[in-house]
Amino acid sequence: MVAIHQIGKEVTVKMKALKLVIVGGVAAGASAAAKARRCNENAEIIMFEKGPDISYATCGLPYYLSGVIQERKRLLVTTASFFRRRFAVDVRTNQEVIHIDPIGHKVVVKDFTAGKEYEETYDKLVLAPGASPVIPPIPGAYSPMVHTVKTLEDTDRIFSYMQDTQPKNAVIIGGGLIGMEMAENLALKSIKVSVVEFMPQILSFLDREMADMVCRHAQKKGIDFYLFEKVTAIKQKDGRGVVQTDKGRELPADLVIMAVGIKPNIQLAKDAGLRIGSHGGVVTNEYMQSSDPDIYAAGDCVESTNLVTGKPVIFPMGSAANKQGRAAGANAMGRKIAVQGFTGTVIVKVFAQTAAKTGLSEREALAAGFTPFVSYIMAGHHAGYYPGAKNLRIKTIADHSSGRLLGAQVIGREGVDKRIDVMATAIYNHMNQEDLIHLDLAYAPPYSSARDPIIVSGAVSQNFQAGDWQPITPHDLQQKIKAEGDFVLVDVRTKRETEKTGIIPGAIHIPLDDLRKRIIELNSEQEIILYCAVGLRSYVGHRILAMHGFREVKSLTGGFGCWTYETTGESTRHPTPRI
Amino acid sequence: MVAIHQIGKEVTVKMKALKLVIVGGVAAGASAAAKARRCNENAEIIMFEKGPDISYATCGLPYYLSGVIQERKRLLVTTASFFRRRFAVDVRTNQEVIHIDPIGHKVVVKDFTAGKEYEETYDKLVLAPGASPVIPPIPGAYSPMVHTVKTLEDTDRIFSYMQDTQPKNAVIIGGGLIGMEMAENLALKSIKVSVVEFMPQILSFLDREMADMVCRHAQKKGIDFYLFEKVTAIKQKDGRGVVQTDKGRELPADLVIMAVGIKPNIQLAKDAGLRIGSHGGVVTNEYMQSSDPDIYAAGDCVESTNLVTGKPVIFPMGSAANKQGRAAGANAMGRKIAVQGFTGTVIVKVFAQTAAKTGLSEREALAAGFTPFVSYIMAGHHAGYYPGAKNLRIKTIADHSSGRLLGAQVIGREGVDKRIDVMATAIYNHMNQEDLIHLDLAYAPPYSSARDPIIVSGAVSQNFQAGDWQPITPHDLQQKIKAEGDFVLVDVRTKRETEKTGIIPGAIHIPLDDLRKRIIELNSEQEIILYCAVGLRSYVGHRILAMHGFREVKSLTGGFGCWTYETTGESTRHPTPRI
Repeated sequence: MVAIHQIGKEVTVKMKALKLVIVGGVAAGASAAAKARRCNENAEIIMFEKGPDISYATCGLPYYLSGVIQERKRLLVTTASFFRRRFAVDVRTNQEVIHIDPIGHKVVVKDFTAGKEYEETYDKLVLAPGASPVIPPIPGAYSPMVHTVKTLEDTDRIFSYMQDTQPKNAVIIGGGLIGMEMAENLALKSIKVSVVEFMPQILSFLDREMADMVCRHAQKKGIDFYLFEKVTAIKQKDGRGVVQTDKGRELPADLVIMAVGIKPNIQLAKDAGLRIGSHGGVVTNEYMQSSDPDIYAAGDCVESTNLVTGKPVIFPMGSAANKQGRAAGANAMGRKIAVQGFTGTVIVKVFAQTAAKTGLSEREALAAGFTPFVSYIMAGHHAGYYPGAKNLRIKTIADHSSGRLLGAQVIGREGVDKRIDVMATAIYNHMNQEDLIHLDLAYAPPYSSARDPIIVSGAVSQNFQAGDWQPITPHDLQQKIKAEGDFVLVDVRTKRETEKTGIIPGAIHIPLDDLRKRIIELNSEQEIILYCAVGLRSYVGHRILAMHGFREVKSLTGGFGCWTYETTGESTRHPTPRI
Repeated sequence: MVAIHQIGKEVTVKMKALKLVIVGGVAAGASAAAKARRCNENAEIIMFEKGPDISYATCGLPYYLSGVIQERKRLLVTTASFFRRRFAVDVRTNQEVIHIDPIGHKVVVKDFTAGKEYEETYDKLVLAPGASPVIPPIPGAYSPMVHTVKTLEDTDRIFSYMQDTQPKNAVIIGGGLIGMEMAENLALKSIKVSVVEFMPQILSFLDREMADMVCRHAQKKGIDFYLFEKVTAIKQKDGRGVVQTDKGRELPADLVIMAVGIKPNIQLAKDAGLRIGSHGGVVTNEYMQSSDPDIYAAGDCVESTNLVTGKPVIFPMGSAANKQGRAAGANAMGRKIAVQGFTGTVIVKVFAQTAAKTGLSEREALAAGFTPFVSYIMAGHHAGYYPGAKNLRIKTIADHSSGRLLGAQVIGREGVDKRIDVMATAIYNHMNQEDLIHLDLAYAPPYSSARDPIIVSGAVSQNFQAGDWQPITPHDLQQKIKAEGDFVLVDVRTKRETEKTGIIPGAIHIPLDDLRKRIIELNSEQEIILYCAVGLRSYVGHRILAMHGFREVKSLTGGFGCWTYETTGESTRHPTPRI
């Protein structure tokens, strides 16, 4: 029987068919089934899904709850009957595979509809059971008002619960991707939303100062944040739900969303003796083959390779699940389709803002042993003279010695997805940050500037490599201010700008265009740190001072626009997130 | 004197300064001046601009005429006084360099304001005189109603002319980038616009079938096209302007825009004995240094390298001019900043559509000696279940044997710029089309699908490389239909779809989900060509037939959505452009 797929295409109809069993029918499982059929018209393909639906749009669930996606049926990418008709796949919903016997090549199936268990044999198996929400050991975590958002059934439950109880106050536990998407979509239903996050920042894939920008935006839209704060209990008090925290707070809650994370569903794999990795996922080779050569695994249950570090990671994204499922389905039929890994691209819409990341954050780069060169830029998403230009803030992390681009984070209202995808493509190709300048990016006024922000990012690196400037990050400057070091901080913006926004405490103000004539006011033996709004003018000032013999000059990378700490003046542009 | 910049940063103030003369002050010239100053605080920098303004937004000019950009001052990216103040550059507007003496290291300048000529010496020179619109030898080409759109002065003239004469009918000669941008922006002023193009298609950077889609869209917006038609005269007739063509047509014209192309301004370079290339531009090395080591050149006047072919091209884009100018300015100050070349990325907004291209078109790939593998895809710009998804059509050209991605063309309403920039980054990095599947592109419903169109394009190539399908292009299928070859054309869409759009003449209709049971109706020894709406179902059908032993199966790549030829039925979806 194994011989069939080795002989390959020449074999046509009459031989005994290969039997493929697929465990799980959402993203990876459904991709595997469809691809397997396209590789083998004769195979017997059975796909088990413990829920009632297959192949639904997990990533769309929050948007259905707000009504942004109006019809439930839009979430059903495809149906069991379609899969039977189109791909001749034997789809068995409401049936859960509860045991795999790798020696006997069979699975034990629990049929919820018939209320019985039975066995099914397989030649090849694709394991795609997904992941489950983590429920932390908090008193009240299983009370009826607490919900997770992972499956369509979860969403149906929340939908009914909201219709029945008309919640006024929701508490979201966890400020990650799902937490922030739920915050926006519940707020759209006029529900007062509070987010409690035990870390000091939301969206932990971002560095903190970038996450803080998103946090401030969500605060303006009415979301309350309680960061660095742990939920200690969820209970009823005086007939109303409350969420208690370790800071003694009691948040009113008619609805609680538990969104602290997910963990791979590996019980089946463990029981079958498959190798489990250090991150708690099923280990596969690049062909999605587990430690049992007849069992492939794909989707949220597996460990993937981070292409920057080469190390294993859990990367539970729909895009990854689709690729892995496709490869697993093909390879189970004898093909050799590789999934190399992922640069770790993540994107999230938070009201009018988009935040995205690819590669490593600064924190991750440090943890991976790199010495990062960090730079920030702020630039319009298209030509400033064309109406509607919105600012983008880009943080890039490169390897200090080689210049290799390690990661990028982008926040803005428009054009974020474009820049992060270009950065992801650059990182996949091991580009140096400096070489971004060579990219020939599309320019017409509605789409970009003559110098796209990506090109600017390349130029910033090129200037650094050439020794033309020395950056200081907002974090390092803040440390320096705290330490009361011997340096002079110079704000080179215009008077009008400083009046509008305030300045960084302790800075003196010399507008750039006065710098040449007022250079005498500065001591060329003392360290000078310049800043402007975005970083271009401080760089110009930097060059002027350096060429006038100043010994040590630094520029605040990203400028005042990326400064997230306190300022003087009446500015309300930078409220500190409530912690 | 030469020694100064070689000694570099250690030198501070008192030595004799290097003298840099820059010819032209728009994109490349202004970039060169600013960068030169940042590299050398002590140099004397003089920038000559024959017009009254420097550094204005050439690419924004059409949008100012329609009022999309409301204020003229928005077009002035920066001013002469700003350049003097910020960069200590001696900006001399209304002064034209009319001769370069490379031996004597001096230029002759014509001062239009003072009405005199004078000489200025230089140590280093940056030549950035731009390009000029081509005026073909047509009777009436210089009459007052005929305008070009290259400079801010041109635009001021058109603006006044439009205010004075309130034109009702405009004829645009040339359907290139400027022609199409002007068509849209004049139409926005309620002017009836006709475009006359001597080639059989508009936007010649695209392949014809792609350009035809844009043409049809513009037709729907009220633009008339006269393709494959030459203007023979522009004249007054019965007191009204008319444009006559070689097909005997007389188009009423109150305003004529001459947009047939531009040619590099190389007279100065020629007179100075600089090397001119086969494409009519100044030849430089990658440091923008001309054949005279003290003269650098940048912007629309130079020849660039096409990074796919390695051959010289004229690439008169603002983004290119900025990079070249920056490098020229730095290198004139003793730096070594390379401009590697360009992948040839072009983008244009045409009403609600965007059309873009990077790398080579199919026609260009053939001309460059490649054997192209051509594929089309049609896919939503973001998840179909999230509101507002718009279709993208992507044509990719890869090298048939190596699989190397050579070019991509994208047309759609949203997300075009993102995909073309990713493709440009992929081509820059010499990626194979198949490897696009490995890119980790950002996925959340508002931005993309779990399978981004770029990933689909990679999968299409991977399937082709694996021998899983054999494409036929719309063009080749049309040839085959014309030649009445021995093949069966099968439409595998649903009945409803075929009724709505009509089918390709001669096709038989077998819905995909009936194919397995109706397979007996087809002869496995005969060539079968399948098509659906976008290409996915025909590929599934392709797999079914191939695995049932059919000898020769092909799929129409891009499906009916990319079919631009005639159909049966009452469909008006595909009116043929008027030729």
